[in-house]
Amino acid sequence: MDKQLRLNAFITNSAVHLSPGLWRHPRDRALGHGRLPFWQDLARLLERGLFDALFIADAIGVSNVYGDSQDMSIRYGLRVPRHDPFLVIPAMAAVTEHLGYGVTGTLSYEPPFLFARRMSSLDHLTEGRAGWNIVTGHLAAGARAMGRDAMTGHDRRYDIADEYMDVVYALWEGSWEDDAVRRDRATGIYADPAKVHRVRHEGETYRVDSIHMVEPSPQRTPVLFQAGASARGRQFAATHAECVFLSAMTKDGMAPVVADIRARAAERGRDPREILCLALMTAIVAPTDELARAKLTEYRSFINLEASLASLSGFTGIDLSKHAPDDPFPNVKQDSGVHSIVDSLSRANDGRRLTVRDVAELGAIGGSGPLIVGSPAKVADELQAWARTADVDGFNLSYATCPGDFEDFIAMVVPELQARGVYKRAYAPGTFREKLYGGGRSRIAASHPAARFRRDGAGSGDPGR
Amino acid sequence: MDKQLRLNAFITNSAVHLSPGLWRHPRDRALGHGRLPFWQDLARLLERGLFDALFIADAIGVSNVYGDSQDMSIRYGLRVPRHDPFLVIPAMAAVTEHLGYGVTGTLSYEPPFLFARRMSSLDHLTEGRAGWNIVTGHLAAGARAMGRDAMTGHDRRYDIADEYMDVVYALWEGSWEDDAVRRDRATGIYADPAKVHRVRHEGETYRVDSIHMVEPSPQRTPVLFQAGASARGRQFAATHAECVFLSAMTKDGMAPVVADIRARAAERGRDPREILCLALMTAIVAPTDELARAKLTEYRSFINLEASLASLSGFTGIDLSKHAPDDPFPNVKQDSGVHSIVDSLSRANDGRRLTVRDVAELGAIGGSGPLIVGSPAKVADELQAWARTADVDGFNLSYATCPGDFEDFIAMVVPELQARGVYKRAYAPGTFREKLYGGGRSRIAASHPAARFRRDGAGSGDPGR
Repeated sequence: MDKQLRLNAFITNSAVHLSPGLWRHPRDRALGHGRLPFWQDLARLLERGLFDALFIADAIGVSNVYGDSQDMSIRYGLRVPRHDPFLVIPAMAAVTEHLGYGVTGTLSYEPPFLFARRMSSLDHLTEGRAGWNIVTGHLAAGARAMGRDAMTGHDRRYDIADEYMDVVYALWEGSWEDDAVRRDRATGIYADPAKVHRVRHEGETYRVDSIHMVEPSPQRTPVLFQAGASARGRQFAATHAECVFLSAMTKDGMAPVVADIRARAAERGRDPREILCLALMTAIVAPTDELARAKLTEYRSFINLEASLASLSGFTGIDLSKHAPDDPFPNVKQDSGVHSIVDSLSRANDGRRLTVRDVAELGAIGGSGPLIVGSPAKVADELQAWARTADVDGFNLSYATCPGDFEDFIAMVVPELQARGVYKRAYAPGTFREKLYGGGRSRIAASHPAARFRRDGAGSGDPGR
Repeated sequence: MDKQLRLNAFITNSAVHLSPGLWRHPRDRALGHGRLPFWQDLARLLERGLFDALFIADAIGVSNVYGDSQDMSIRYGLRVPRHDPFLVIPAMAAVTEHLGYGVTGTLSYEPPFLFARRMSSLDHLTEGRAGWNIVTGHLAAGARAMGRDAMTGHDRRYDIADEYMDVVYALWEGSWEDDAVRRDRATGIYADPAKVHRVRHEGETYRVDSIHMVEPSPQRTPVLFQAGASARGRQFAATHAECVFLSAMTKDGMAPVVADIRARAAERGRDPREILCLALMTAIVAPTDELARAKLTEYRSFINLEASLASLSGFTGIDLSKHAPDDPFPNVKQDSGVHSIVDSLSRANDGRRLTVRDVAELGAIGGSGPLIVGSPAKVADELQAWARTADVDGFNLSYATCPGDFEDFIAMVVPELQARGVYKRAYAPGTFREKLYGGGRSRIAASHPAARFRRDGAGSGDPGR
């Protein structure tokens, strides 16, 4: 039996995410991202389409890679302005019952004690539908915005991230025992102080000495997402992530990455099938292949080369203003965080080396993820082929127009996938984690490193914390 | 003509705020503070009552003053758990049109670049209804939670706060010019880079080097609240605050504080009448004085001495476990931040020195603010007397039960105040700041220090920033 496909909608709190210029399209409402109706309407739509989650990307700072200046980012609105990704979620949770919410939190800049409180508050408010996309920040401009001289080195950022995770796990899993809260109206006892523990962490980068300020939320630790691309990133993902975001332009290019992450997870004692791998994907769907191609052509009339180059420069860290459009797309260091993006972009098309212009056109809609263009049957075929060949569990769906492409996907592709028996016909009950892993699985798996911090239940406990 | 009274509802994201034990009362729903219905229902109620704002207090850390331990705070749920105050606001904004939202942000612990982004995002989402209560943090336990050895000294905290304000003002007022955003569908230009300026701040405590990540929100700088009690705190309030929260047990005790703050504001070139002073107040109202007294008696059956003492210890910083209930209430240093609270508590009742037990009973409902108990006419009389004698502009209303006491206030006192011509019968149009100061006043006054950072318009500009 083919596996059930998971679907995330992938968005950021900006007018532009991965498809610069499309904010001008009549079917795009992302200019309204600053206000609530855009978000509440989108959440209702995605819940009608039985999407697993809405996912909000984020980064601190404004890319100034292209031409060594932020000007083109500002000119074309390339993920700037970018608003806070947390605040829109409770208003969406209020008008939905099942949709999960993944939010990006940049741990390099968020004090862990306050961040853990905010995330636990969100898990309460969403009644157990919170997820966290763990990022360390990829923009040098973000480091300077935050008052640092330069960005911490790539691998060192992940070492710091490992320590950060220990702090937040201790707060989420180890501070309040399951039966600490009494709320006893007869005696007036709210909680039993003997069952609420101070987290004392004194590490290389972080210090915390306090109980967690929020009593246990439905999931305690939110569902953990990560997008590890480099070797060190994959190691981090295999250790911490429950869902992994991946991008590659071809399914054959993605297959070894998925296999590697599952193998690394197994080495760490985790069930490799439970690492849910989601591929970045944009689908342009219409009743027929021909109509879909016409739609793409119309979408392409909204893009421009400079905006696409500046946008890709931000993702890859390569200043594409220094390369002529007909030059071959440049290489980057094998182990940099963006290597897989560049490699995938530049090697698409059966390995033929692409030019800067080719890549800009390829990435102009949907960024570093592939584009499927066609009828509902063709899109479903291709998604299923990805699931089989690359062994992914589902897709992180981007768009050319929002909500336009989500509306079309839900109207046309979702019924096709349901007819093929690879997409749910109703939500499973329970929290976000229960929807992903089954009833009774609200809390993180016992094999996950967060479980070490538990005081009771399945984990081993770590009374030294 | 008597002045129009302003009303804030004063709450925190906990089961207990200023009236420990009352969470057990059938008319209290604050146990539901973790989820959205509690907040959305409260916001709808307050908007029906034409309240100016809902105000969410906050502090980082758990008080361990009483008995040198956090145990009684946890046992009685004394502002612990305390959840994030920002996240509940957008869901309330979605179901209201006029109500303002004041949120407490502890600047000592929030990186200013991210905090400024969050606040601007909130002002967009609420369509110009955001306010910020500026606090530096008063709990030593909060400093330890955040990894510091000890709390920064009181006056030094305010010096740091002055620098913090310069950073966030520069981001809010000085980064994006009013006409920077184009959103030009024809050309694809989102914004003009020449009109978006990097904020470069290199100070004693903070460093920032970036444009602001959010385009100008309806108010740019949110409406600024502060609760300065010490001399240094009043100086800060007179410099930065548009609304000041004050607490004193008597109107005669409050009068000189209000006069002092207005005088300090005038010295700084600000209009002293535009510093809106709001007095902490709890009203227990019923159709007759006798019924109101009976209601208070019933409320009092839910309190206990230990919880009240531990709660007051948290506010005053005095370990009341070290004093016998019949000892005189202790003094604190004249210039400490809590002096006015202690002074006010211990000198209430016509100057007779009160015992620890007296103060605990006095503060058991409504904390360090006075309690008015009576018929709608009596409550209205007393509020008007405060406005005249103490020259306050309105009240920061606390409660014994939430939403119970707000329901009663809105049903009984609001119509009484309206009949007397001292309370609005409809909201004024516009943003929170326009509702406070009049149409066309969405942006902070030209005489306010934030206006120095403007690049255009009424401020002088500061091109060095």
